[in-house]
Amino acid sequence: MTTNPQRRGAAVESRVLEATLTLLAERGAALTVDEVAAASGVHKTTIYRRYATREQLIASAVMSLAEQAVPPVADDDPRAAIERLALAVAATTRTDAGPNILRATIAASATSSELVQLADAFFRARYALAVEHLRRLAESGDLRSDVDPVVVWEQIVNPMHVRALCGRATSEADARLLVELALRGAAP
Amino acid sequence: MTTNPQRRGAAVESRVLEATLTLLAERGAALTVDEVAAASGVHKTTIYRRYATREQLIASAVMSLAEQAVPPVADDDPRAAIERLALAVAATTRTDAGPNILRATIAASATSSELVQLADAFFRARYALAVEHLRRLAESGDLRSDVDPVVVWEQIVNPMHVRALCGRATSEADARLLVELALRGAAP
Repeated sequence: MTTNPQRRGAAVESRVLEATLTLLAERGAALTVDEVAAASGVHKTTIYRRYATREQLIASAVMSLAEQAVPPVADDDPRAAIERLALAVAATTRTDAGPNILRATIAASATSSELVQLADAFFRARYALAVEHLRRLAESGDLRSDVDPVVVWEQIVNPMHVRALCGRATSEADARLLVELALRGAAP
Repeated sequence: MTTNPQRRGAAVESRVLEATLTLLAERGAALTVDEVAAASGVHKTTIYRRYATREQLIASAVMSLAEQAVPPVADDDPRAAIERLALAVAATTRTDAGPNILRATIAASATSSELVQLADAFFRARYALAVEHLRRLAESGDLRSDVDPVVVWEQIVNPMHVRALCGRATSEADARLLVELALRGAAP
Protein backbone atom coordinates (compact mmCIF):
# COMPACT_ATOMS: atom_id res chain seq x y z
CA MET A 1 0.00 0.00 0.00
CA THR A 2 1.34 3.41 -0.93
CA THR A 3 0.52 6.35 1.27
CA ASN A 4 0.45 9.98 0.25
CA PRO A 5 2.12 11.88 3.11
CA GLN A 6 0.70 15.23 1.99
CA ARG A 7 -2.88 13.97 1.91
CA ARG A 8 -2.39 12.14 5.23
CA GLY A 9 -1.01 15.39 6.71
CA ALA A 10 -4.10 17.31 5.58
CA ALA A 11 -6.39 14.66 7.06
CA VAL A 12 -4.57 14.81 10.41
CA GLU A 13 -4.77 18.59 10.39
CA SER A 14 -8.47 18.57 9.64
CA ARG A 15 -9.15 16.02 12.45
CA VAL A 16 -7.16 18.12 14.93
CA LEU A 17 -8.85 21.39 13.97
CA GLU A 18 -12.35 19.86 14.01
CA ALA A 19 -11.77 18.36 17.45
CA THR A 20 -10.48 21.75 18.65
CA LEU A 21 -13.58 23.55 17.31
CA THR A 22 -15.92 21.02 18.93
CA LEU A 23 -14.20 21.42 22.29
CA LEU A 24 -14.15 25.22 21.94
CA ALA A 25 -17.85 25.26 21.14
CA GLU A 26 -18.66 23.03 24.09
CA ARG A 27 -16.48 24.53 26.76
CA GLY A 28 -14.75 27.70 25.55
CA ALA A 29 -11.05 28.46 25.72
CA ALA A 30 -10.35 26.24 28.75
CA LEU A 31 -9.46 23.24 26.53
CA THR A 32 -6.08 21.54 26.79
CA VAL A 33 -3.93 20.00 24.05
CA ASP A 34 -4.30 16.65 25.87
CA GLU A 35 -8.06 16.84 25.37
CA VAL A 36 -7.64 17.68 21.67
CA ALA A 37 -5.28 14.70 21.32
CA ALA A 38 -7.82 12.40 22.98
CA ALA A 39 -10.75 13.69 20.93
CA SER A 40 -8.92 13.63 17.57
CA GLY A 41 -6.91 10.43 18.08
CA VAL A 42 -3.79 12.36 17.02
CA HIS A 43 -0.77 12.13 19.31
CA LYS A 44 0.02 15.20 21.39
CA THR A 45 3.57 15.47 20.02
CA THR A 46 2.19 15.47 16.46
CA ILE A 47 -0.14 18.33 17.42
CA TYR A 48 2.71 20.28 19.02
CA ARG A 49 4.84 19.74 15.89
CA ARG A 50 2.23 21.67 13.88
CA TYR A 51 1.09 24.17 16.52
CA ALA A 52 3.78 25.48 18.85
CA THR A 53 1.31 26.59 21.53
CA ARG A 54 -2.25 25.92 22.67
CA GLU A 55 -3.12 29.47 21.56
CA GLN A 56 -1.83 28.89 18.03
CA LEU A 57 -3.92 25.74 17.83
CA ILE A 58 -7.04 27.67 18.89
CA ALA A 59 -6.26 30.48 16.43
CA SER A 60 -5.79 28.03 13.55
CA ALA A 61 -9.06 26.27 14.35
CA VAL A 62 -10.93 29.57 14.45
CA MET A 63 -9.34 30.69 11.17
CA SER A 64 -10.38 27.41 9.52
CA LEU A 65 -13.93 28.34 10.54
CA ALA A 66 -13.61 31.84 9.04
CA GLU A 67 -12.39 30.30 5.79
CA GLN A 68 -15.44 28.06 5.48
CA ALA A 69 -17.62 29.50 2.74
CA VAL A 70 -20.61 31.40 4.07
CA PRO A 71 -23.67 30.29 2.06
CA PRO A 72 -24.55 33.13 -0.30
CA VAL A 73 -27.81 34.90 0.43
CA ALA A 74 -30.03 34.35 -2.60
CA ASP A 75 -31.78 37.65 -2.55
CA ASP A 76 -32.07 40.44 -5.07
CA ASP A 77 -33.05 42.88 -2.38
CA PRO A 78 -29.85 43.99 -0.60
CA ARG A 79 -31.77 45.34 2.42
CA ALA A 80 -33.46 41.96 2.93
CA ALA A 81 -30.10 40.23 2.51
CA ILE A 82 -28.52 42.46 5.17
CA GLU A 83 -31.35 41.75 7.59
CA ARG A 84 -31.04 38.01 6.92
CA LEU A 85 -27.29 38.09 7.65
CA ALA A 86 -27.90 40.10 10.84
CA LEU A 87 -30.53 37.58 11.95
CA ALA A 88 -28.01 34.77 11.31
CA VAL A 89 -25.48 36.50 13.59
CA ALA A 90 -28.18 37.01 16.24
CA ALA A 91 -29.12 33.31 16.00
CA THR A 92 -25.45 32.42 16.64
CA THR A 93 -25.49 34.52 19.83
CA ARG A 94 -28.38 32.39 21.07
CA THR A 95 -26.26 29.18 20.88
CA ASP A 96 -23.53 28.09 23.31
CA ALA A 97 -21.03 27.42 20.52
CA GLY A 98 -20.99 30.90 18.94
CA PRO A 99 -20.16 32.94 22.06
CA ASN A 100 -17.70 30.27 23.28
CA ILE A 101 -15.77 30.36 20.00
CA LEU A 102 -15.85 34.18 19.94
CA ARG A 103 -14.50 34.38 23.50
CA ALA A 104 -11.88 31.74 22.75
CA THR A 105 -10.71 33.75 19.71
CA ILE A 106 -10.27 36.89 21.82
CA ALA A 107 -8.72 34.91 24.68
CA ALA A 108 -6.16 33.34 22.35
CA SER A 109 -5.39 36.75 20.85
CA ALA A 110 -4.77 38.18 24.33
CA THR A 111 -1.53 36.19 24.52
CA SER A 112 0.32 37.60 21.50
CA SER A 113 0.13 40.43 18.98
CA GLU A 114 0.41 37.90 16.14
CA LEU A 115 -2.84 36.30 17.27
CA VAL A 116 -4.50 39.73 17.53
CA GLN A 117 -4.01 40.02 13.77
CA LEU A 118 -5.66 36.63 13.34
CA ALA A 119 -8.69 37.87 15.30
CA ASP A 120 -8.82 40.86 12.97
CA ALA A 121 -8.64 38.64 9.86
CA PHE A 122 -11.42 36.47 11.34
CA PHE A 123 -13.81 39.41 11.73
CA ARG A 124 -12.97 40.90 8.31
CA ALA A 125 -13.63 37.57 6.57
CA ARG A 126 -16.99 37.36 8.33
CA TYR A 127 -17.93 40.95 7.31
CA ALA A 128 -17.20 40.59 3.57
CA LEU A 129 -20.58 39.28 2.42
CA ALA A 130 -22.70 41.85 4.27
CA VAL A 131 -20.42 44.69 3.18
CA GLU A 132 -21.00 43.66 -0.45
CA HIS A 133 -24.77 44.08 -0.01
CA LEU A 134 -24.27 47.43 1.75
CA ARG A 135 -22.16 48.57 -1.20
CA ARG A 136 -25.05 47.73 -3.51
CA LEU A 137 -27.35 49.89 -1.34
CA ALA A 138 -24.89 52.77 -1.70
CA GLU A 139 -24.73 52.30 -5.47
CA SER A 140 -28.52 52.46 -5.75
CA GLY A 141 -28.51 55.70 -3.72
CA ASP A 142 -30.12 54.18 -0.60
CA LEU A 143 -27.03 54.69 1.54
CA ARG A 144 -24.61 57.61 1.78
CA SER A 145 -21.71 56.90 -0.56
CA ASP A 146 -19.27 58.85 1.67
CA VAL A 147 -19.76 56.42 4.58
CA ASP A 148 -17.62 53.26 4.63
CA PRO A 149 -20.11 50.34 4.51
CA VAL A 150 -17.86 48.47 6.97
CA VAL A 151 -18.76 51.07 9.63
CA VAL A 152 -22.48 50.53 9.00
CA TRP A 153 -22.07 46.75 9.37
CA GLU A 154 -19.98 47.22 12.54
CA GLN A 155 -22.87 49.23 14.04
CA ILE A 156 -25.19 46.30 13.26
CA VAL A 157 -23.09 43.32 14.39
CA ASN A 158 -20.61 44.60 16.96
CA PRO A 159 -23.30 45.24 19.60
CA MET A 160 -24.32 41.59 19.12
CA HIS A 161 -20.67 40.48 19.38
CA VAL A 162 -19.97 42.41 22.60
CA ARG A 163 -23.25 41.20 24.15
CA ALA A 164 -22.29 37.63 23.22
CA LEU A 165 -18.87 38.10 24.83
CA CYS A 166 -20.73 39.27 27.95
CA GLY A 167 -23.04 36.24 27.94
CA ARG A 168 -26.09 38.00 26.55
CA ALA A 169 -28.03 36.85 23.48
CA THR A 170 -29.63 39.12 20.86
CA SER A 171 -33.29 38.50 19.95
CA GLU A 172 -34.63 38.68 16.39
CA ALA A 173 -36.45 41.90 17.25
CA ASP A 174 -33.23 43.45 18.55
CA ALA A 175 -31.29 42.38 15.44
CA ARG A 176 -33.95 44.00 13.24
CA LEU A 177 -33.78 47.18 15.34
CA LEU A 178 -29.98 47.33 14.93
CA VAL A 179 -30.37 47.02 11.14
CA GLU A 180 -33.11 49.66 11.05
CA LEU A 181 -31.14 52.18 13.14
CA ALA A 182 -27.86 51.65 11.27
CA LEU A 183 -29.39 51.93 7.78
CA ARG A 184 -31.38 54.98 8.85
CA GLY A 185 -28.27 56.57 10.33
CA ALA A 186 -26.38 56.20 7.04
CA ALA A 187 -29.31 57.02 4.74
CA PRO A 188 -28.68 59.94 2.34
CA MET B 1 2.47 49.40 67.73
CA THR B 2 -1.12 48.34 67.14
CA THR B 3 -2.12 47.24 63.69
CA ASN B 4 -5.56 47.27 62.17
CA PRO B 5 -5.92 43.95 60.29
CA GLN B 6 -8.86 45.20 58.23
CA ARG B 7 -7.05 48.31 57.01
CA ARG B 8 -3.89 46.31 56.36
CA GLY B 9 -5.97 43.82 54.35
CA ALA B 10 -7.40 46.61 52.21
CA ALA B 11 -3.90 48.02 51.59
CA VAL B 12 -2.60 44.61 50.52
CA GLU B 13 -5.59 44.13 48.23
CA SER B 14 -5.10 47.52 46.63
CA ARG B 15 -1.37 46.86 46.05
CA VAL B 16 -2.12 43.48 44.47
CA LEU B 17 -4.87 44.83 42.21
CA GLU B 18 -2.78 47.85 41.14
CA ALA B 19 0.18 45.63 40.26
CA THR B 20 -2.16 43.36 38.31
CA LEU B 21 -3.61 46.29 36.34
CA THR B 22 -0.14 47.65 35.55
CA LEU B 23 1.00 44.24 34.27
CA LEU B 24 -2.25 43.78 32.29
CA ALA B 25 -1.85 47.20 30.69
CA GLU B 26 1.78 46.52 29.77
CA ARG B 27 1.52 42.97 28.53
CA GLY B 28 -2.07 41.78 28.38
CA ALA B 29 -3.43 38.59 29.88
CA ALA B 30 -0.15 36.66 29.77
CA LEU B 31 0.78 37.72 33.32
CA THR B 32 1.49 35.16 36.05
CA VAL B 33 0.65 35.29 39.76
CA ASP B 34 4.42 35.08 40.42
CA GLU B 35 4.90 38.35 38.52
CA VAL B 36 2.07 40.01 40.45
CA ALA B 37 3.69 38.82 43.69
CA ALA B 38 7.05 40.26 42.64
CA ALA B 39 5.58 43.58 41.47
CA SER B 40 3.33 44.09 44.51
CA GLY B 41 5.68 42.75 47.19
CA VAL B 42 2.82 40.55 48.44
CA HIS B 43 3.54 36.85 48.89
CA LYS B 44 2.06 34.48 46.30
CA THR B 45 0.25 32.41 48.95
CA THR B 46 -1.41 35.59 50.30
CA ILE B 47 -2.58 36.40 46.78
CA TYR B 48 -3.95 32.88 46.28
CA ARG B 49 -5.74 33.10 49.65
CA ARG B 50 -7.78 36.03 48.26
CA TYR B 51 -8.05 34.98 44.61
CA ALA B 52 -8.44 31.26 43.96
CA THR B 53 -7.25 31.50 40.35
CA ARG B 54 -5.23 33.77 38.08
CA GLU B 55 -8.46 34.51 36.20
CA GLN B 56 -10.28 35.63 39.35
CA LEU B 57 -7.36 37.94 40.14
CA ILE B 58 -7.58 39.48 36.65
CA ALA B 59 -11.36 39.83 36.90
CA SER B 60 -11.12 41.53 40.31
CA ALA B 61 -8.49 43.95 39.03
CA VAL B 62 -10.63 44.85 36.01
CA MET B 63 -13.71 45.31 38.21
CA SER B 64 -11.77 47.65 40.51
CA LEU B 65 -11.11 49.73 37.40
CA ALA B 66 -14.80 49.75 36.44
CA GLU B 67 -15.66 50.94 39.96
CA GLN B 68 -13.32 53.92 39.75
CA ALA B 69 -15.45 57.01 39.34
CA VAL B 70 -15.57 58.30 35.78
CA PRO B 71 -15.08 62.09 35.91
CA PRO B 72 -18.45 63.70 35.16
CA VAL B 73 -18.68 65.54 31.86
CA ALA B 74 -19.38 69.17 32.73
CA ASP B 75 -21.58 69.99 29.81
CA ASP B 76 -25.14 71.21 29.57
CA ASP B 77 -25.37 70.01 25.98
CA PRO B 78 -26.05 66.24 26.05
CA ARG B 79 -24.98 65.81 22.40
CA ALA B 80 -21.61 67.42 23.13
CA ALA B 81 -21.29 65.28 26.26
CA ILE B 82 -21.94 62.09 24.25
CA GLU B 83 -19.36 63.07 21.65
CA ARG B 84 -16.85 63.84 24.40
CA LEU B 85 -17.40 60.42 26.00
CA ALA B 86 -17.07 58.71 22.59
CA LEU B 87 -13.82 60.60 21.93
CA ALA B 88 -12.54 59.43 25.34
CA VAL B 89 -13.24 55.80 24.40
CA ALA B 90 -11.53 56.33 21.03
CA ALA B 91 -8.49 57.83 22.80
CA THR B 92 -8.29 54.70 24.98
CA THR B 93 -8.19 52.51 21.84
CA ARG B 94 -5.09 54.45 20.74
CA THR B 95 -3.17 53.41 23.88
CA ASP B 96 -1.60 50.01 24.60
CA ALA B 97 -3.20 49.73 28.03
CA GLY B 98 -6.85 50.06 26.97
CA PRO B 99 -6.95 47.23 24.41
CA ASN B 100 -4.72 45.02 26.59
CA ILE B 101 -7.07 45.36 29.58
CA LEU B 102 -10.12 44.83 27.36
CA ARG B 103 -8.64 41.64 25.87
CA ALA B 104 -7.58 40.41 29.30
CA THR B 105 -11.14 40.93 30.59
CA ILE B 106 -12.57 38.82 27.78
CA ALA B 107 -9.78 36.25 28.09
CA ALA B 108 -10.42 35.84 31.82
CA SER B 109 -14.16 35.54 31.16
CA ALA B 110 -13.52 32.76 28.60
CA THR B 111 -12.62 30.41 31.44
CA SER B 112 -15.84 30.47 33.46
CA SER B 113 -19.45 31.62 33.22
CA GLU B 114 -19.09 33.47 36.53
CA LEU B 115 -16.40 35.66 34.96
CA VAL B 116 -18.59 36.25 31.89
CA GLN B 117 -21.03 38.00 34.23
CA LEU B 118 -18.17 40.13 35.53
CA ALA B 119 -17.34 41.20 31.97
CA ASP B 120 -21.00 42.16 31.52
CA ALA B 121 -20.99 44.20 34.75
CA PHE B 122 -17.78 45.92 33.59
CA PHE B 123 -19.35 47.08 30.33
CA ARG B 124 -22.64 48.16 31.97
CA ALA B 125 -20.80 50.25 34.55
CA ARG B 126 -18.87 51.94 31.75
CA TYR B 127 -22.05 52.70 29.75
CA ALA B 128 -24.04 54.32 32.59
CA LEU B 129 -22.83 57.91 32.16
CA ALA B 130 -23.35 58.08 28.38
CA VAL B 131 -26.76 56.43 28.64
CA GLU B 132 -27.81 59.18 31.07
CA HIS B 133 -27.01 61.85 28.47
CA LEU B 134 -28.82 59.86 25.75
CA ARG B 135 -31.87 59.70 28.01
CA ARG B 136 -31.80 63.50 28.27
CA LEU B 137 -31.78 63.71 24.45
CA ALA B 138 -34.85 61.46 24.35
CA GLU B 139 -36.60 63.63 26.97
CA SER B 140 -36.00 66.77 24.91
CA GLY B 141 -37.43 65.06 21.82
CA ASP B 142 -34.10 64.76 19.95
CA LEU B 143 -34.07 60.96 20.11
CA ARG B 144 -36.82 58.40 19.64
CA SER B 145 -38.26 57.59 23.05
CA ASP B 146 -39.14 54.03 21.98
CA VAL B 147 -35.47 53.11 21.37
CA ASP B 148 -33.44 51.90 24.37
CA PRO B 149 -30.60 54.46 24.75
CA VAL B 150 -28.26 51.54 25.63
CA VAL B 151 -28.64 50.27 22.03
CA VAL B 152 -27.66 53.70 20.65
CA TRP B 153 -24.56 53.80 22.87
CA GLU B 154 -23.67 50.22 21.86
CA GLN B 155 -23.74 51.30 18.20
CA ILE B 156 -21.29 54.09 19.07
CA VAL B 157 -18.78 52.29 21.30
CA ASN B 158 -18.98 48.58 20.41
CA PRO B 159 -17.38 49.08 16.97
CA MET B 160 -14.49 50.80 18.82
CA HIS B 161 -14.33 47.92 21.34
CA VAL B 162 -14.23 45.17 18.69
CA ARG B 163 -11.64 47.08 16.65
CA ALA B 164 -9.53 47.47 19.81
CA LEU B 165 -9.83 43.74 20.49
CA CYS B 166 -8.57 43.21 16.92
CA GLY B 167 -5.62 45.56 17.39
CA ARG B 168 -7.08 48.50 15.51
CA ALA B 169 -7.41 52.03 16.90
CA THR B 170 -10.31 54.43 16.26
CA SER B 171 -9.45 57.96 15.12
CA GLU B 172 -11.24 61.09 16.39
CA ALA B 173 -12.90 61.49 12.98
CA ASP B 174 -14.18 57.91 13.10
CA ALA B 175 -15.51 58.35 16.65
CA ARG B 176 -17.40 61.49 15.53
CA LEU B 177 -18.81 59.57 12.53
CA LEU B 178 -20.05 56.77 14.80
CA VAL B 179 -21.82 59.33 17.02
CA GLU B 180 -23.32 61.13 14.02
CA LEU B 181 -24.64 57.92 12.41
CA ALA B 182 -26.04 56.47 15.66
CA LEU B 183 -27.83 59.67 16.71
CA ARG B 184 -29.20 60.14 13.18
CA GLY B 185 -30.37 56.52 13.13
CA ALA B 186 -32.35 57.00 16.35
CA ALA B 187 -33.59 60.54 15.61
CA PRO B 188 -37.41 60.94 15.68
